[in-house]
Amino acid sequence: MVQIASRRAAPTPKDARRAEILRGAADAFRERGFHGAAMRDIAKTLGMLPSNLYYYFEGKDDLLYACQKTALATLLAGARAAIKAGGSAAARLKAIARRHVLCLLEETGGSAAHLEFRALPGKRRAEIARGRDAYERLVRGVVEAGVASGELRPVDAKLATLSMLGALNSTVVWWKPDGPRRPPEIADAFANLIVEGLVAGGHDR
Amino acid sequence: MVQIASRRAAPTPKDARRAEILRGAADAFRERGFHGAAMRDIAKTLGMLPSNLYYYFEGKDDLLYACQKTALATLLAGARAAIKAGGSAAARLKAIARRHVLCLLEETGGSAAHLEFRALPGKRRAEIARGRDAYERLVRGVVEAGVASGELRPVDAKLATLSMLGALNSTVVWWKPDGPRRPPEIADAFANLIVEGLVAGGHDR
Repeated sequence: MVQIASRRAAPTPKDARRAEILRGAADAFRERGFHGAAMRDIAKTLGMLPSNLYYYFEGKDDLLYACQKTALATLLAGARAAIKAGGSAAARLKAIARRHVLCLLEETGGSAAHLEFRALPGKRRAEIARGRDAYERLVRGVVEAGVASGELRPVDAKLATLSMLGALNSTVVWWKPDGPRRPPEIADAFANLIVEGLVAGGHDR
Repeated sequence: MVQIASRRAAPTPKDARRAEILRGAADAFRERGFHGAAMRDIAKTLGMLPSNLYYYFEGKDDLLYACQKTALATLLAGARAAIKAGGSAAARLKAIARRHVLCLLEETGGSAAHLEFRALPGKRRAEIARGRDAYERLVRGVVEAGVASGELRPVDAKLATLSMLGALNSTVVWWKPDGPRRPPEIADAFANLIVEGLVAGGHDR
């Protein structure tokens, strides 16, 4: 079982500063890409000395790992809450989709860092991969249940889940904080666009 | 106007070898990621000496640019053919979606190189960005026409297009040549999953 969130102890001042740094680093990653943003660029964005930044994160891999871990914990908590809230399969999937977009665009500032999966070294990459798999299984479970009950069309649940997550993740590629659409508007539109195609016998507007 | 395909002169033997190298490079990019694959890895995958590879491509940026240019020319030609073939907006969008997946998974071997947009230097990046914009406009035009005629639901055509392209592009992230699903199966499933959500008043199975 993945217990990314619950494994944490009570936050220390260093943890709080680390969280602040992660949000700031998102701006540097978004502007320059993960590979293009050096530790000194990230420090500059944050108004810190590079040496001070290294006190909080050993290096870019460590920052990336923390970004992905934080995002995954939020995604997993969001999916669990949406599933627990109940309702139709379509309602649960829309709630998951909305939370997913808000997590990516608001919490991680639209940084694509959490998508730079291959950049992580082996052990940490495997841990993040397990978290992503757990999240994918949660979403897929809702699709499968909806197909089994006849509420959703008889789609391939694996491919439907991948298509949904692919569309949701892609928002970080084009979204800009100063663009015309706010994250909640994008979240609602994507949830609707993606989930409507799955509903059996017509649309649940 | 973007004329990536029509600008080409008759192919020379060097062009043919370059096309072969691009397909081979896709394997290296897929396995190691664009940033992880060095020119010597790509040469090794192809059974070439690095010095020989440099005869065909000045460097990795040049390879990436060629990958993206080739993929875009195929995507643009595919969208134009699908639009020309006519039919309902849903039929045209499904044809575009199918061709898109086949282009990514079969022609470019599932390499994510064409997505590493930020890695290109300024002028070439701008050229590729123009091509991507032209492609997006073609797809969006079909969505807008379908919404205007009442065939499609009154969705935000811009966001619907981005959601569709995001889902289609994401196939390269998880697809593996030795995986259980062949590209045509994925192409059909994604076309159906994505486009059904747009059809007004029920599904066009």
